[in-house]
Amino acid sequence: MKGVIAKEPGGKEQLIYTDMPEPTLQTGELLIEVHAAAVNRTDIMNREGKTGYASNPIIGVEVAGVVANANGQQGFAIGDRVMGLVNGGGYAEFATMPAGRAMKIPDNLDFTDAAAIPEVFLTAFQTLYWIGNLSKKESVLIHAGGSGVGTAAIQLANVLSDAFILTTAGSSTKLAKGKELGADVLINYKEQDFAQEVVKTTNEQGVSLILDFIGAQYWQKNLQSIAVDGRWVVIGVLGGTTIEHVNLMHLMAKRIQLTGTLLTPRSDQYKAELTQAFSHQTYTLFENGSLKPIVDAVFAIEDVQQAHQMMEENRNLGKIVLKVK
Amino acid sequence: MKGVIAKEPGGKEQLIYTDMPEPTLQTGELLIEVHAAAVNRTDIMNREGKTGYASNPIIGVEVAGVVANANGQQGFAIGDRVMGLVNGGGYAEFATMPAGRAMKIPDNLDFTDAAAIPEVFLTAFQTLYWIGNLSKKESVLIHAGGSGVGTAAIQLANVLSDAFILTTAGSSTKLAKGKELGADVLINYKEQDFAQEVVKTTNEQGVSLILDFIGAQYWQKNLQSIAVDGRWVVIGVLGGTTIEHVNLMHLMAKRIQLTGTLLTPRSDQYKAELTQAFSHQTYTLFENGSLKPIVDAVFAIEDVQQAHQMMEENRNLGKIVLKVK
Repeated sequence: MKGVIAKEPGGKEQLIYTDMPEPTLQTGELLIEVHAAAVNRTDIMNREGKTGYASNPIIGVEVAGVVANANGQQGFAIGDRVMGLVNGGGYAEFATMPAGRAMKIPDNLDFTDAAAIPEVFLTAFQTLYWIGNLSKKESVLIHAGGSGVGTAAIQLANVLSDAFILTTAGSSTKLAKGKELGADVLINYKEQDFAQEVVKTTNEQGVSLILDFIGAQYWQKNLQSIAVDGRWVVIGVLGGTTIEHVNLMHLMAKRIQLTGTLLTPRSDQYKAELTQAFSHQTYTLFENGSLKPIVDAVFAIEDVQQAHQMMEENRNLGKIVLKVK
Repeated sequence: MKGVIAKEPGGKEQLIYTDMPEPTLQTGELLIEVHAAAVNRTDIMNREGKTGYASNPIIGVEVAGVVANANGQQGFAIGDRVMGLVNGGGYAEFATMPAGRAMKIPDNLDFTDAAAIPEVFLTAFQTLYWIGNLSKKESVLIHAGGSGVGTAAIQLANVLSDAFILTTAGSSTKLAKGKELGADVLINYKEQDFAQEVVKTTNEQGVSLILDFIGAQYWQKNLQSIAVDGRWVVIGVLGGTTIEHVNLMHLMAKRIQLTGTLLTPRSDQYKAELTQAFSHQTYTLFENGSLKPIVDAVFAIEDVQQAHQMMEENRNLGKIVLKVK
């Protein structure tokens, strides 16, 4: 079979789609004939040699495809359409997936749509609910509202919690998409001071929850934006990792709960439990169109370098998908 | 009646025990004839004019005494022995207390013992359980193990959760007390690198929960000491408020939940709910001696300056109490 590897750790030019051995099926895994795989930032880090998924040289952490070998796993049969997270090896003709992470694909979604769901919706679901404890009608500030996780989080907060949703993005196109998906307050961070807008639109209360993909660059403004007893979940550091001068009294005075998290390194069991909880709550919502995967671009897998370039340039609104078959 | 005020914001020499008007009873409050009041760090800040409790000029946030006017509050009668938090005004012959915060005093405890309970045990209970979610048999690192909150937290973690308790203190006397109260690992921070000791005694796993009274000075070592998915509750900044160079990736890689908190500024309702939950779980444990208030020193209220001096010099092992009657 063929799969995408990096010849050497480095830039997108290192990526090649080349002959690789078929993966070996382990106990508890399904063999998936991959139809589509989606691109994630962690793929870029892996390409650069900055991380590693279980030493799999083939890049990619999420796929949609057809079960080619159910391997005795209950609930799955050859031919089933499934989507889910894999431990690397996603950009390939075949991949193995722990059965606990496989989700049936609703009939109304094709494979490129389905490949766009697992990573961003599971991350949004986990950070909003399992970590962020978002309640009905609460306020939430979702940064990077045009990103894959951002578009998923806006939808979930709207559909599952009828939340008061404030979102930031750097273009009117992305903000218009945020509005369409259910955001209530749209803030262009290039033109507005987001903290001022948050304070103004929440009656000076601030928001109960922040999903922070930005990190250091937004630290002070997030502190201004958060409510007393607010939760703040750091899931990305696109704006830098290091903050100079953190004053702990600010965290104490507002009684802030700050949680750092990453999804990819979590245990198989955690991912399986998260997958089941997510699938249980959202399957019919995807089926009836209340929730929608947001796909910006589809590339043939042979054009994987262009797909990575698009993500590195932050040009995507929603997901970038590779079509394998 | 008499009460303690600061003549001017400043040092302990500003404190005088002088004639003051009796407090006015509001709806929902009990009038307490105070027998004992305990000293807290927040009292020192208030004396220095750095904070303020509802503009009450009389210092003090916790008392034990006798109900002098039940004011129609169900469950209380004149003559009942009660202890609890007050909104300032504790260092006085009479104080008012929201009825929801009053706890009956078990018969085996005298007033100086009882005055030593509310602030430190409620803070320890809140941070270990309501914020820190300590589970049975989990590991917890309790800094300042000889302090009022430290001695309370060690007891609660031991008696309620059979936790694996690691504690730091600066003298062998304080550590011996920690051991007597149930701590498993005793670390003298003046002689040992506490992070190394934590890593060594937890099989390189780190601790699931940290109660941090120290702040900036311990930041890096706490990061080393905490387990993956650990919770870290910042309830004091005795070692400084400002950290240079916080790397958010460290919080993300270990998936740390960092929560800042303060008890005094919380709402009446919160304090009432916390008080009820605490009293419900611990009344019989105080009654049968499984939990013990730790009183280091008792001063006559006229000697309040000496009591503040002792706390400022960190000489106390457990609580400092003022005897009013």
